[in-house]
This record gives sequence, structure tokens and C-alpha cells, in this order.
Amino acid sequence: MIKVSVFYASGDGKHFDIGYYCDKHMPMVQRLCGAALKSMAVEQGLSGMAAGSAAPFMAMGHLYFESLNAFQASFGLHVKEIVSDVPNYTNIQPVIQISQVKI
Amino acid sequence: MIKVSVFYASGDGKHFDIGYYCDKHMPMVQRLCGAALKSMAVEQGLSGMAAGSAAPFMAMGHLYFESLNAFQASFGLHVKEIVSDVPNYTNIQPVIQISQVKI
Repeated sequence: MIKVSVFYASGDGKHFDIGYYCDKHMPMVQRLCGAALKSMAVEQGLSGMAAGSAAPFMAMGHLYFESLNAFQASFGLHVKEIVSDVPNYTNIQPVIQISQVKI
Repeated sequence: MIKVSVFYASGDGKHFDIGYYCDKHMPMVQRLCGAALKSMAVEQGLSGMAAGSAAPFMAMGHLYFESLNAFQASFGLHVKEIVSDVPNYTNIQPVIQISQVKI
């Protein structure tokens, strides 16, 4: 299984609409990817390790696929539509990582 | 539910023993935290969005707790023992984020 993580880093002047992301953007990604998208997850940053410290990321979104091929054959076909929705919920340039799920 | 994510950033001269992390470190964290730790996850970085690009993080570990209080009352009591194990698998200074699970 692979995990595609999208990180939205905190910073001055940055904003992120978590409601739009959860209610509109991620369901759109689910619809476009179809059954190839095995599951997804969203988190909103609360803090760093110490209570009250700044969270490195305002939000993170995660998409799980069986393989890189399954990712590229689904998400890969809809990148333009997915990316064009980003300005509707944030002004943060996301950082993306593809990982192998170990546990 | 909250998620405690531990990020191990890639970089020159950095190393990370994913076998030790999965087979020794994370089971130790599970044992120390007990039932307060609802689940955990580990990923190993493969790439960025583009095939062949560098992964921002060599590895990530995630711990799920019902609440901040549950985290502090379990993990919080064992921080010293957990942190003292880090040099056994990596020379990377981890970055930690506590997040609210939204999806």
C-alpha cells in the first residue's frame, strides 16, 4: 500500500479552509479517483510537541492506494482538476510525499 | 481523536533504520503507552509528487489517542525512555506535530 500525503505548512499570512477541504475538496478527489482510492484521512494542526507551540502544518491530507500504478492511473488522470481547486481553500503551496506504508 | 505525527526529514548524511523503528521502537512505544494508544502507523518515504524526486521525509510515525489528556497521561510519562531510543535508529532530529483528526 502507498500513501500520498499532502502537507500544508503553517506561515504568516497563510489560511486554510478546513471545512471546504473536508466537505468539498476531498469528496471530489474520492469521486475522481474512484475505487482506486482505498481510503483517505485529513488532520488539522493543533500544536507542536509542547502545548501552545505552533503546529508545523496547518493541515494534512492523505490518500491510500494499492500501488504507484493505481495512483497514477486514477489521481494522475485528474491532477489538473484537483490542483485547480486548491485556491478555493488555501493560499499555501502544498508539499507532497509518496510513502510506502510499513505499519 | 488526536494524531501525534513524528517527521524525520531527509537530508545529506541522514540515516534511518526502518527495520529497527518498526520492529523495536514502535512496539516499545505501544507497550509503554498501553491501551491509551489506539493505533499507530509508519511510512517510509519513496518520492515527492514526481517519480524519482526526493521524498521530503525519510520516515514518519503516527500515534493515535482519544484526546490530548490521554496522550499526556501515557506517552507523556515515558518521554525520556522513548527519546533515549532515537539514536538507535536515526541521526535525524524529529519534528513533532499534534493534530486533530478530521477524516
